[in-house]
Amino acid sequence: MAQKTTLEAFEAVFPKLEEVLVEHAQSYKLPAQAVEWYKNSLKTNAVGGKCNRGMSVPDSVSLLLGRALTEDEYFQAATLGWMTELLQAFFLVSDDIMDSSITRRGKPCWYRQEGVGMIAINDAFMLEAAIYTLLKKFFRGHPRYVDLLELFHEVTYQTEIGQLCDLLTAPEDVVDLDNFSMEKYRFIVVYKTAYYSFYLPVALALYMLDIATPENLKQAEDILIPLGEYFQIQDDYLDNFGLPEHIGKIGTDIMDNKCSWLVNQALAIVTPEQRRVLEENYGRKDKDKEAVIKRLYNELNLEQRYKDYEERAVGEVRALIAKIDESKGMRKSVFEAFLGKIYKRTK
Amino acid sequence: MAQKTTLEAFEAVFPKLEEVLVEHAQSYKLPAQAVEWYKNSLKTNAVGGKCNRGMSVPDSVSLLLGRALTEDEYFQAATLGWMTELLQAFFLVSDDIMDSSITRRGKPCWYRQEGVGMIAINDAFMLEAAIYTLLKKFFRGHPRYVDLLELFHEVTYQTEIGQLCDLLTAPEDVVDLDNFSMEKYRFIVVYKTAYYSFYLPVALALYMLDIATPENLKQAEDILIPLGEYFQIQDDYLDNFGLPEHIGKIGTDIMDNKCSWLVNQALAIVTPEQRRVLEENYGRKDKDKEAVIKRLYNELNLEQRYKDYEERAVGEVRALIAKIDESKGMRKSVFEAFLGKIYKRTK
Repeated sequence: MAQKTTLEAFEAVFPKLEEVLVEHAQSYKLPAQAVEWYKNSLKTNAVGGKCNRGMSVPDSVSLLLGRALTEDEYFQAATLGWMTELLQAFFLVSDDIMDSSITRRGKPCWYRQEGVGMIAINDAFMLEAAIYTLLKKFFRGHPRYVDLLELFHEVTYQTEIGQLCDLLTAPEDVVDLDNFSMEKYRFIVVYKTAYYSFYLPVALALYMLDIATPENLKQAEDILIPLGEYFQIQDDYLDNFGLPEHIGKIGTDIMDNKCSWLVNQALAIVTPEQRRVLEENYGRKDKDKEAVIKRLYNELNLEQRYKDYEERAVGEVRALIAKIDESKGMRKSVFEAFLGKIYKRTK
Repeated sequence: MAQKTTLEAFEAVFPKLEEVLVEHAQSYKLPAQAVEWYKNSLKTNAVGGKCNRGMSVPDSVSLLLGRALTEDEYFQAATLGWMTELLQAFFLVSDDIMDSSITRRGKPCWYRQEGVGMIAINDAFMLEAAIYTLLKKFFRGHPRYVDLLELFHEVTYQTEIGQLCDLLTAPEDVVDLDNFSMEKYRFIVVYKTAYYSFYLPVALALYMLDIATPENLKQAEDILIPLGEYFQIQDDYLDNFGLPEHIGKIGTDIMDNKCSWLVNQALAIVTPEQRRVLEENYGRKDKDKEAVIKRLYNELNLEQRYKDYEERAVGEVRALIAKIDESKGMRKSVFEAFLGKIYKRTK
């Protein structure tokens, strides 16, 4: 039977990877001060998250094999999982600068920590580079090594075009609702989030087991991209309608001029008068204007609209899972596990 | 006979590569506004430099073959050359942010251009990603494809650890000459500059021709890294002793607190009193203090010290070139070409 990993077991793998990365830096005779800096960046930026993306690699491998993993298999799968966490760390460190964010995981963002500043940009690069150091160290002899390299290149690029579109569509300081559309919303969500968060971990699991046939990859993509879209829409919904005590933060999408699912839905159904209300109050750093938008969202019944969307989206994903062809090693349970973690979550 | 490329011929290849990169972005249905943005970033950041690094790939390939290149060979070599230019563009866009630079190639730095700001960070990422898009498009079937991928990964990482060490050793706002040393200076120069500027183009030429034996790569490294070091020391020398009408800019290393060869040489030979002068005047945004340092450099005879260094370094490089083993396809002329471009340059 498959077995689910725990954060504890997953985190226990990191020190070994850190050792490899630090030894690699030291093999170039990197001065001690810089080695310490690198260690600190790795610890602060790669470790300490919920590791949902990373842990889904060993979980998927175990579901694909239908049994618990051996120690070696677990190490290999968790190493691939940590690469997804490093990729995320690369993006988060740099996104926080681009978005002028203040805190991350309850602490000041890395670039806002004492003495860091714009060095954070280079630290982000080094988090990305760590992926390829680990791939070379642990997967150079793997029959799908080239595919693993190309997968990381492609998913990195996909996330970057998603981020570019997001930055151009919703700049923090210029409110222009004409810029928003469900089409752009979908593009941003799919590329900025869904590929690296949902498709990547499963594709890695398939490559690791050398069952990444074009058919299996396509089946994974066809389900995981809609699932990632649903996840982000839920995130946008919770930002406004979730309970702060559940989601662990107070939503700021309205004040931050985010191209959120909610504002896009509102735009699709507002009267000209309500549109004016949106224009005049969205994306302003002003609690009263935010309250006006929140009232409008209630008037427009966006909560019910979300619930209708959710039932429809989950129904579609379930139908896709039901049709999965398991003859080439794919397993429905891989997707059921993802859906189970997401459906009706409150945080 | 080998034939030297011209900037014109080299630049004529770029539109074809740009087309591939833009089509690649469009294959993901990137919205038009973002495609335009990407084109503008490519044009502004990748094109318009002297292309010394890029052009040295086709030049090296031609010298290795001992004849002019066919159209296909030229395209392939120039494409690899443009990848080194893309790598450099990735670094320059981000270094300019990290260094708070004002201008680049006579225009405002990309991040300082209208409406760009911190989006430049993501643009830098996309310049890096373009390397791997082009490698996949044009070299996926090449017998050394994996080595090419790993070469770019390694050189990228080397440049990043060089940049990290530089940022930590010479922060713009904290002057601490105890932080400087010839050892750190050498580390920064070798990793931040020499690998990607000198070793990379020749390694690419060797891989393209599939004559990148460990011996040939080692011979290239053993000569090109000292040559890169000499090049950077010359750059530091010219920043202070070069003629602004030759070097096309007014040197600012003293005011910028740069860990320059000159200040490191000075530190090695100053009296305690001269050391105090250094401490009190180096790295300040103050023309008078800069003049004090310039006088001290003259007192210390740094110009002569540089000339002695240059003769010694060039002598050593010539001795290394003389010993080159040409039996496995390496050619002395590759290194003579590099040295010829550098020796006694005034700009």
